[in-house]
Order: sequence, then C-alpha cells, then structure tokens
Amino acid sequence: MRLDHVGIAVKNAKGAAGTFQRLFGLPLDLERTVPDQGVTVVKLASGESFCEFLEPLGPQTPVGKFLAKGGGPLHHICFAVPDIAAALVEMRGKGVRLIDEKPRIGAAGLPIAFLHPDSCGGVLVEFVEKP
Amino acid sequence: MRLDHVGIAVKNAKGAAGTFQRLFGLPLDLERTVPDQGVTVVKLASGESFCEFLEPLGPQTPVGKFLAKGGGPLHHICFAVPDIAAALVEMRGKGVRLIDEKPRIGAAGLPIAFLHPDSCGGVLVEFVEKP
Repeated sequence: MRLDHVGIAVKNAKGAAGTFQRLFGLPLDLERTVPDQGVTVVKLASGESFCEFLEPLGPQTPVGKFLAKGGGPLHHICFAVPDIAAALVEMRGKGVRLIDEKPRIGAAGLPIAFLHPDSCGGVLVEFVEKP
Repeated sequence: MRLDHVGIAVKNAKGAAGTFQRLFGLPLDLERTVPDQGVTVVKLASGESFCEFLEPLGPQTPVGKFLAKGGGPLHHICFAVPDIAAALVEMRGKGVRLIDEKPRIGAAGLPIAFLHPDSCGGVLVEFVEKP
C-alpha cells in the first residue's frame, strides 16, 4: 500500500493550506465543501502524495469533534528536500521559527531538521535531506 | 517537496507497527532507538513514503510530552488501494472494525472508506481506490 495523503484537521483550511503553499510551494489540487462529510477540503499536492486540510462545517461533525477533543496520535509530517541547509535558509527567509537551527542526523542517518508548529499552521514539520 | 513520511506517536512502537504490518502489509524499513531524540523508531515502507512509529523513552521527551497532552492536529492517513471492495473484504477478514462497511464517494470523486482507529493502533486510516 502506498501512502496517498495525510489529513490535517484545522479551524481554517484555506488559511492553513495557504501557509503550506507559501512555505513549501505545494500546488493546489482541490478545494471543495462536502456537506455529507461535514467538511471543507483544501488539498495540496506533494510529490505523489497530498496534504489534505479539513475544516469542519460545525462542532458536531466528525472533524469538529476531533478538534474539540484536542487532536490525535499523528505527530508530524516530513518532506524530503534535496539540500536541507538551503531549505532552512529559505524557511528562515520566510520567517519560519526553526526548532533545529542546524540540521542534525536523524534515525536513518540522514540530515534532518524540524520547523516549529507555530509557523506551520499548528503542524510539526520535518525536513529530511534526500539528494 | 515530496511527502516522505508521517510520524505517529504511540506508547508501543513495535506493537503499533506490527499492527500496520499485519493489516496493510507494509515492510519493515528500520528499527532503532535514538537516545538523543528520546525515542525508539520503527519505520515501515509504504510506496515511496514511510509510516514512522515513535515510542518515547520517557515522559519528559518531546514525544512523551506530546502523548501526555493528548495529541495534535494531524487527523488521518490514507492508503491508495487498487480495489477498495477487495481491500475492505481483506480488512474484515483480519478482524478490522470498519467505519464504512461499504465504500462511499470522497471529495475527489473516488471511492473511499475509513477503518476504525481501535483496530489500527489508534490511527484513523482511510483507503482510496486508485486503480
């Protein structure tokens, strides 16, 4: 099975997706309100996968209840970048607060760095260098 | 930027990864304890991406604190499958509790179905049919 997308519950799908478009250059794939699912969806492409921002249409929708209880176990998303030092310079230039000012070596032996959720629509974002 | 992986905070990385291996056939990519990050990592491959299970080494680690506060905004992950009806039959055969007994049409106009987090290590998992 191939990972297709990550769903991200937010109060403002257009706002959070706009942040991801601005920071990470992800192109818009789809924007749609789906009343029977109780959400507005804004979907951005990322390689062969997608980041899907979900805004609840009300507090009694599944996504509304999810947000009300404070979230779930998914922890972060990671983007592969060809040059992590250059990517961090770019993020700094965009005003992103960095958790890792310099790359460090991650579990797989590759350079990684985390961006602060406050700069990324509440999402903890990681970069991994994969030339 | 290409989505590389999703990090999933859990109390038992081997257990949750084992569930994903059993249910979704994802092969093991890496299993490692990283003391300076305060985690044990079990990473499974999924197409060109990965599902990365993170078990905290203690309550004062970043992942330990994340789990203690009850989670974050990432909502679900979605796997692309070639035949969603067959995939649901397979999941039912594996004892998975289905949220959608039958596929329904998602925001992108493709058949989708959700599996219950109780059967998937606490993670809300979606299938989308992409032949």
